[in-house]
Amino acid sequence: MLRWGHRPSRDARLTTHVALAARALGAKGLILSDIEDRKIKETIDEVTQNWGGTFFFEMGIPWKKAVNNWKTKNGVVVHLTAYGENIETSDVLNRVRALEKNVLVIVGSQKVPREFFSEDVSDFNVAIGNQPHSECASVAVFLDRFFHGKELARSFQNGKMSIIPQRRGKKIHDNEKR
Amino acid sequence: MLRWGHRPSRDARLTTHVALAARALGAKGLILSDIEDRKIKETIDEVTQNWGGTFFFEMGIPWKKAVNNWKTKNGVVVHLTAYGENIETSDVLNRVRALEKNVLVIVGSQKVPREFFSEDVSDFNVAIGNQPHSECASVAVFLDRFFHGKELARSFQNGKMSIIPQRRGKKIHDNEKR
Repeated sequence: MLRWGHRPSRDARLTTHVALAARALGAKGLILSDIEDRKIKETIDEVTQNWGGTFFFEMGIPWKKAVNNWKTKNGVVVHLTAYGENIETSDVLNRVRALEKNVLVIVGSQKVPREFFSEDVSDFNVAIGNQPHSECASVAVFLDRFFHGKELARSFQNGKMSIIPQRRGKKIHDNEKR
Repeated sequence: MLRWGHRPSRDARLTTHVALAARALGAKGLILSDIEDRKIKETIDEVTQNWGGTFFFEMGIPWKKAVNNWKTKNGVVVHLTAYGENIETSDVLNRVRALEKNVLVIVGSQKVPREFFSEDVSDFNVAIGNQPHSECASVAVFLDRFFHGKELARSFQNGKMSIIPQRRGKKIHDNEKR
């Protein structure tokens, strides 16, 4: 996942939620491009230490460099935008999957540069519906569909705690106790 | 959708995103319980006027009253929580659907009252995975699955504008022009 356009004062909680959603829904990690925000990195790294898995959080790399690195490694770039091909009514998700490549998902915040829509950057422009939206919601639905929902059944290894699902109430297992 | 625990200073953008996600993904409306926030209502009402559909935004009603009203009208209440039954690994979504009733989805912000987990409030406690999460992402995935993805193919009537999906670039149709 690549998060573009983060403004620390305004977007702190939203970017945190984008990262939490990406982690919970099976992304390998998040690149916060063009800027650093150590508080968010701390929050996310702490969640990963407590609740397991191996989610990476990188920051500060210019978006163009991150995209070019990805392309050099033969990866595919998906730009999430309400203007793109509708994930439900078009075959775009099948076309992404058919490439069988690693996917970098770009998700904006403020108005994104026009370049994001061009072939130099995005291989696909995908819309989670063509209505004004939340980037956090878009990330969630894209990942859930991309992984056919299986990501929610994964177990997160080596966390300090795990939730034991319940019909009622809360149950947390302390993984450090014998 | 019922949004509980909104704190205007801290949650303004997140609650806006929850409402945008709810609208884009097929919810009929959102109740902001226990508090009023006119700025968010204006934002959401403006989105609906511009982009169509009939999403309602109510606010200020105490959560208990909203839940009791819903139950009186024979509706079912789903509480989204990471502690609940996993939507992927359990049959909870089928059990919700089997009732064939109108669903009120409760989504918290801060730590929610214990009562939310009890039979007095929730008929189901549903987890979009049992990892720490974003309420905005949870709402999105719940609605996408609940509606079998069909909500993203709906057209929103009577908006001033519509997006025409494109492989590249942005295309907006001005519905007020002949």
